[in-house]
Amino acid sequence: MKLPGQEESDVSSAYENVPTGELDSGPGSRPSPSGSSDTDSRELGVTKDPLLFIQLNELMGWPKALEWRETGRWVLFEEKLEVGAGRWSAPHVPTVALPSLQKLRSLLAEGLVLLDCPARSLLELVEQVTGVESLSPELREHLQSLLLQRPQHLIQGTDTRLCWGSAHPREASHDEEAPLKEQRQNPLRKKLPPGAEVGAVLAGELGFLAQPLGAFVRLRDPVVLGPLTEVSLPSRFFCLLLGPPTLGRSYREMGRAVAILLSDPQFQWSARRASSLHDLLAALDAFLEEVTVLPPGRWDPTARISPPKCLPSQHKRLPLQMQEAKSPSAWRRARFEHRRGHLPHEPSPELQRTGRLFGGLVQDVRRKASWYPSDFLDALHPQCLSAVLYIYLATITNAITFGGLLGEATDGAQGVLESFLGTAVAGAAFCLMAGQPLTILSSTGPVLVFERLLFSFSRDYSLDYLPFRLWVGIWVATFCLVLVATEASVLVRYFTRFTEEGFCALISLIFIYDAVSKMLSLTYAYPIQRPGSPAYGCFCQYPDPGGNESQWTRTKPKDRDDILSMDLGLVNASLLPPPECARRGGHPRGPGCHTVPDIAFLSLLLFLTSFFFAVALKHVKTSRFFPSVVRKVLSDFSSVLAILLGCGLDAFLGLATPKLMVPKEFKPTLPGRGWLVSPFGANPWWLSVAAALPALLLSILIFMDQQITAVILNRAEYRLQLASSSLPHRYLQKGAGFHLDLFCVAVLMLLTSALGLPWYVSATVISLAHMDSLRRESRACALGEPPSFLGIREQRLTGLMVFLLTGISVFLAPVLKFIPMPVLYGIFLYMGVAAISSIQFTKRVQLLLMPAKHQPDLLLLRHVPLSRVHLFTAIQLVCLGLLWIVKSTPAAIIFPIMLLGLVGVRKALEWVFSPQELLWLDELMPEKKSIPEKRLAPEYSFSASDSEDSDLMYQPKAPEINISVN
Amino acid sequence: MKLPGQEESDVSSAYENVPTGELDSGPGSRPSPSGSSDTDSRELGVTKDPLLFIQLNELMGWPKALEWRETGRWVLFEEKLEVGAGRWSAPHVPTVALPSLQKLRSLLAEGLVLLDCPARSLLELVEQVTGVESLSPELREHLQSLLLQRPQHLIQGTDTRLCWGSAHPREASHDEEAPLKEQRQNPLRKKLPPGAEVGAVLAGELGFLAQPLGAFVRLRDPVVLGPLTEVSLPSRFFCLLLGPPTLGRSYREMGRAVAILLSDPQFQWSARRASSLHDLLAALDAFLEEVTVLPPGRWDPTARISPPKCLPSQHKRLPLQMQEAKSPSAWRRARFEHRRGHLPHEPSPELQRTGRLFGGLVQDVRRKASWYPSDFLDALHPQCLSAVLYIYLATITNAITFGGLLGEATDGAQGVLESFLGTAVAGAAFCLMAGQPLTILSSTGPVLVFERLLFSFSRDYSLDYLPFRLWVGIWVATFCLVLVATEASVLVRYFTRFTEEGFCALISLIFIYDAVSKMLSLTYAYPIQRPGSPAYGCFCQYPDPGGNESQWTRTKPKDRDDILSMDLGLVNASLLPPPECARRGGHPRGPGCHTVPDIAFLSLLLFLTSFFFAVALKHVKTSRFFPSVVRKVLSDFSSVLAILLGCGLDAFLGLATPKLMVPKEFKPTLPGRGWLVSPFGANPWWLSVAAALPALLLSILIFMDQQITAVILNRAEYRLQLASSSLPHRYLQKGAGFHLDLFCVAVLMLLTSALGLPWYVSATVISLAHMDSLRRESRACALGEPPSFLGIREQRLTGLMVFLLTGISVFLAPVLKFIPMPVLYGIFLYMGVAAISSIQFTKRVQLLLMPAKHQPDLLLLRHVPLSRVHLFTAIQLVCLGLLWIVKSTPAAIIFPIMLLGLVGVRKALEWVFSPQELLWLDELMPEKKSIPEKRLAPEYSFSASDSEDSDLMYQPKAPEINISVN
Repeated sequence: MKLPGQEESDVSSAYENVPTGELDSGPGSRPSPSGSSDTDSRELGVTKDPLLFIQLNELMGWPKALEWRETGRWVLFEEKLEVGAGRWSAPHVPTVALPSLQKLRSLLAEGLVLLDCPARSLLELVEQVTGVESLSPELREHLQSLLLQRPQHLIQGTDTRLCWGSAHPREASHDEEAPLKEQRQNPLRKKLPPGAEVGAVLAGELGFLAQPLGAFVRLRDPVVLGPLTEVSLPSRFFCLLLGPPTLGRSYREMGRAVAILLSDPQFQWSARRASSLHDLLAALDAFLEEVTVLPPGRWDPTARISPPKCLPSQHKRLPLQMQEAKSPSAWRRARFEHRRGHLPHEPSPELQRTGRLFGGLVQDVRRKASWYPSDFLDALHPQCLSAVLYIYLATITNAITFGGLLGEATDGAQGVLESFLGTAVAGAAFCLMAGQPLTILSSTGPVLVFERLLFSFSRDYSLDYLPFRLWVGIWVATFCLVLVATEASVLVRYFTRFTEEGFCALISLIFIYDAVSKMLSLTYAYPIQRPGSPAYGCFCQYPDPGGNESQWTRTKPKDRDDILSMDLGLVNASLLPPPECARRGGHPRGPGCHTVPDIAFLSLLLFLTSFFFAVALKHVKTSRFFPSVVRKVLSDFSSVLAILLGCGLDAFLGLATPKLMVPKEFKPTLPGRGWLVSPFGANPWWLSVAAALPALLLSILIFMDQQITAVILNRAEYRLQLASSSLPHRYLQKGAGFHLDLFCVAVLMLLTSALGLPWYVSATVISLAHMDSLRRESRACALGEPPSFLGIREQRLTGLMVFLLTGISVFLAPVLKFIPMPVLYGIFLYMGVAAISSIQFTKRVQLLLMPAKHQPDLLLLRHVPLSRVHLFTAIQLVCLGLLWIVKSTPAAIIFPIMLLGLVGVRKALEWVFSPQELLWLDELMPEKKSIPEKRLAPEYSFSASDSEDSDLMYQPKAPEINISVN
Repeated sequence: MKLPGQEESDVSSAYENVPTGELDSGPGSRPSPSGSSDTDSRELGVTKDPLLFIQLNELMGWPKALEWRETGRWVLFEEKLEVGAGRWSAPHVPTVALPSLQKLRSLLAEGLVLLDCPARSLLELVEQVTGVESLSPELREHLQSLLLQRPQHLIQGTDTRLCWGSAHPREASHDEEAPLKEQRQNPLRKKLPPGAEVGAVLAGELGFLAQPLGAFVRLRDPVVLGPLTEVSLPSRFFCLLLGPPTLGRSYREMGRAVAILLSDPQFQWSARRASSLHDLLAALDAFLEEVTVLPPGRWDPTARISPPKCLPSQHKRLPLQMQEAKSPSAWRRARFEHRRGHLPHEPSPELQRTGRLFGGLVQDVRRKASWYPSDFLDALHPQCLSAVLYIYLATITNAITFGGLLGEATDGAQGVLESFLGTAVAGAAFCLMAGQPLTILSSTGPVLVFERLLFSFSRDYSLDYLPFRLWVGIWVATFCLVLVATEASVLVRYFTRFTEEGFCALISLIFIYDAVSKMLSLTYAYPIQRPGSPAYGCFCQYPDPGGNESQWTRTKPKDRDDILSMDLGLVNASLLPPPECARRGGHPRGPGCHTVPDIAFLSLLLFLTSFFFAVALKHVKTSRFFPSVVRKVLSDFSSVLAILLGCGLDAFLGLATPKLMVPKEFKPTLPGRGWLVSPFGANPWWLSVAAALPALLLSILIFMDQQITAVILNRAEYRLQLASSSLPHRYLQKGAGFHLDLFCVAVLMLLTSALGLPWYVSATVISLAHMDSLRRESRACALGEPPSFLGIREQRLTGLMVFLLTGISVFLAPVLKFIPMPVLYGIFLYMGVAAISSIQFTKRVQLLLMPAKHQPDLLLLRHVPLSRVHLFTAIQLVCLGLLWIVKSTPAAIIFPIMLLGLVGVRKALEWVFSPQELLWLDELMPEKKSIPEKRLAPEYSFSASDSEDSDLMYQPKAPEINISVN
């Protein structure tokens, strides 16, 4: 008995059979950027060959009623016929027992292998295959008619309308070349890309055969084999596995084994090029070398494994590829970085300092100018239309709520009208000029906090607010221009995830705090009436016919309690509600006249309803219910639908909840001012100089706010930023424009200050949502394959349309006044919760509450001790707490400096954590790029353990913009 | 090159090497019922051998600083050392590359294999192992000192306190026999059962070796190998795999391969009994025959697979076992039935008709009497204490809410006090006498509906309700006794899942409908005040000093509107709230005096709060947060906590929400009646005869209600009912008592009618919760292994305690009056939703809304066409709709007959669906038991495809009582 382990010395030869030159794909063989193929396997050129659809026809019913039935099919994954239910199973990872592969190997070795068979029809093919000597003539004839018999296919429409193909299974083989109606109508045909080929596997038990009959045929020119296959595509491979009935279903399993082999990219590649049986067997052995084995005692072989989120990289399977990299360690490190989801840490071209004044800006303008025409042409896609609608609704929600907050913060110096107008003007201008036109501007949390501070300062010192603010704006613009001139934006390389997360968490917390506190303030405005509470009772008093208002016979109240029980003794009174009373010329009297019952609880209900509905609708996307189109719409418009629902509920009940107050006229909110802010107003002249101090702080804030957002938007995984030179340009990337963006913000700063509009910087959350709505994805051709991300449709038109529509919405006051404020507060809460849930920091905070054994299998937990992870989280929590305290106290004015301090804290962390810990918990700062590789990954020194972690965990993050909020 | 496929003809011989007599476990080798081992593998006697803990020590740091480090361990699943993070990974299914197994095989074949090695210490063992000829003396010495070097272990406490064992890794080998401190303190030790043995695998690359060194040792007597292993247990196996450094980590992977082999039950069995190298290699080949293979292109070999919910059955792996069954088809069918989760359909002994009058009752009493002492002794377990507390709280919640509903339904003829008293008396009596003492009695939905009907009937005809009800009760008891005498309970075999689900869905819908309608009725009682609504305004009018009440100068109202604006012209009025006004001797006047603001919305908030908190807390059990004890408490007491939260919220706000009204005195709710109901009261004498008609209907209802619940409780998967004779009695089963239970219900019917207490039958939901809290589970000894279900602690004490406590609670009125009604309505909604979510019918209704490709991989969808599944669901929906309509119309009195009609509909379904469809969708009715096997499973005729579906899906349902509700 020869044993499987004895071939040890031969195993590596299997690879050498594969011509290395062809495996090693040169730069020329890369698909063009416009191509739709994207997965690693295709990139390498290994499967530049047409896609192969494999189907298994099984011979059933021996000995009574022989018939062929399609019982399995493969593209990437396996689908199995559920015979009883008459449906295809969900796609799953194919598994097979090892003996089936081994039996297949011996059958192939002894059987007929025809490579480049010239057959041009099924009949010719069958004649060739059955032409082996061992068969007697009558047996041959019997076999031929059996093989020409029309098989049964289960054609499953997308609408679950089933139809069993081939109503006449025992029909003769006439006309078998013409594609059948059900073949042509098969919806599967549309899912397969043009040029796809078929591999047909026929397997089964046949009692009259004395010995196994195996045949593997590669057709020279692919031919449509009549009704043999489910789809009328030309077949490239044909495999026949028949034999006498034995115990078990060995032929069926061998058929599955062939199908699984053919669906493997490398085996298929070899099989297409094999010139002899030896090549084929070598490819099979190479496959066996790489298979993973599941032990029988711990894994039920019949369990179905769902398709993994992404296929294993074909890189791993090609040891030869390693030699392409300069050195193994460099290769390993590049791979390591790649796996962490970060591209290597060389600064991308946009962030390289030119050394000239305004050099970065000039470069940005040059780079962007070349794309300018395409920035409009690229928008000609239906997806952009839906993006416009979605982001428009998100933007006006934002404008309304921020406008409302601004109005409160500035005591009416600015308001919703300014918010709408400013958003429209600034946003549109930015879209036309900016370096990253997908950015949506907004007056975000920190700037609003600053504006509130500025206003209370100017009120305390009786300053004229808007002129003072104008000067602050002028100074900020000046400072920002200096930053642009000195190319300060290259410093964003120091903004690591630590800074991003601190900033993002702070903004989110401000959202949440504002939403909840606004909601609670409503319960003070509309107090709940407890039994026995004094605020009870109100009536309407009319003037008597003579016009004298009151005829009180009031006694002096004796004590506090008696104020309520005072003997009124009045006449000409009624119990009309206050508004009605006033309409009729009376005066509402009594402690209860200004309380409106039920409003507090209704507001709370509306608040919770809009919050929970927004959350629930967002999650509809991942539910199993409804067709995917419906799910997508419900999820994409979750906030809008939640607002509509809240408004509907409010309108249905008809109570006087506080509504959004939008001015009915198109004029500034502050009575008596024109659109242009006067440069001095009532302020002393020196205030224009003194404004430089707050402007300095605001500049820091704006720089941080703008650039952190820009860094997040230009993350490598979104494929907008230019890749660093060491990696191929695989996608259409128009590049970032950090300098240009800051320049635009400076210009808009001037404009909005002069017009008395809110100040604008890039809004992280809504810009991410914008990008998310413009994702380009490959169509999933193979069943079970997840669509892959191709990039984002970067253009200027969607943003422009959004802001034009926002401008028009200034005149929507009659509609907007139906929106109750609690509903908007609920949406704000949702925005804050969604944003804070999306950062890794939150996941690490949750780890603090989890027992070690229940923690998820996060990558960083595999590489960093738990205590260090907790320490890092705790430091972040402390920083966040300090920022919050500073923001909430009178020291808030130094808040921008504190924000900048985050970068310093991160720098100091290098004394506490080792570089490799920081690599997992955060990312490295620019200086650390040159640390020796040894120090970087000492854990790899023991063993080359970079095969330890699954590629699945390291995939460059598909842009999961799960904070898509509107 | 010898190829893996060429041994085809030899493969089956691997099995024959294993002595069949030993594999084939006779009845004698079954573990005793009291044993704690339960999984299939142990049942077969395959692993009656001690449990094996396997650890892999890897040699690291070549060439600089050699040290051994434990990097992997196995019991059932693999745990891997996360080197960087210093923690053990979560247990996962071990996978290995096929070449590692093959290389291992050749290394073993060429290496040293010592079976029954007499070594008595690590030193002796090392000397034996290094005693091979190929080693030079100095090499041998070097190797010996290396092998005696103390390895590093990562000892991980449950409290995540880590401690790296062996602080002095380079310490000499003195004293290595004494167990180290960290070995003794290792918490893993406690998780391994007594008698467990260790398999130690040492692997790594050693540069000074010229050729590979492999050794496999089985020690004759297991020895503690000093500090070699993490736990100081005696080692049985020792495997050494060392060799010169080669590319890749082949020795480490070979070490893992050995460990995976040893952790496989069958390989381990063979390795323990192997008498030669040949046996060992044959066992390895047998393992290879059975492995499942994952293709490299579709599965990343480094991905970790979580442990399956239950291990694959070892039955599958033993083809010899098949011969035990009478015939292959009978075996297949038995297996098929077993997999569906139903034990074979022979009636269990309790349901076999004796043919004698009261024969079943006598049998039940006899069977139960023999267990009577143990019914009290078995309760001596701490688990019972927590069950008592849990079920007590559930029971009083139930008693309160049903009492409230009963009070409303009968207009105060009965109430909360009767509910408490009845629950206590009836429940305790039932626990002491019944056939199934775990049953909790309750006045469930349908009986309450019937009582409501009876009451409205007696009110319409001016009858004296309680005496009339007494006669109905007497008649019902009589009818039930007749049913007991005639052994009618054996008919429960006709109650299939169709009937159970129809009944359960109806009860749940009644719960939901009642909860929502009660809640909505509160908004009528406490109307919301809209602006301009007439119910506005109220003031307090005092009598003038002379005592004349009013001094109105009222003008005639001119139109409807003027009623409100009438000129009151009154004196001596104030704006005091109505209660205060009345206290001071005044009279509240005005349309708004009887409205209480804010109550409607607050009630709605309380309702939603209690519902959502109950749901959320229930789900805490499966969350990752908090230690499992905290999670269990939060989840088990979810309803109680939700009620407490609601009460707290209500008390905090202090509004006058409607509260639970509990009588302060211990006397019947109906004023003026004594505890004993007079037999005639004001009714004519013939009414006592006429009461037989409604009693007949009620008897049907009670029989259905009681017996469907009993069938659900005695389902095979809960292991309370006696198994049918063809299966071994594996668990301590005291058996069901259908006849005895019905007899008890009849007796209690008499008692409760005579005392004017509610009528009681078994409550499905709460009884299931009771059983759930008394589950006996095997302790999970192996990491990653789910605990297995051993049965339920059937005894009478927990129930008795619960009802005694309930009785005492009658005097809890001062506490209970703080519970707002909306909170209880919310809990009711939760009970209804939880109950309806737990049945398969609901899952099938959800399928109606799911596109085919998103449907879950349910077993029935694999075997029944979707259209047939939908048809079955639609028929159930129609039945449910009809039942609901009947219940809601004046025809409700025939409702019990309709319920009985469900059985008829199910019978009729046999004309629509094939037996195999019904087998998957429902279960078979008794007559169908004899249908030919062919008809039963025609889909198996093509191929022996019963290996198609995973055993995982067919495991006899672990009692997932997910409707545990209180």
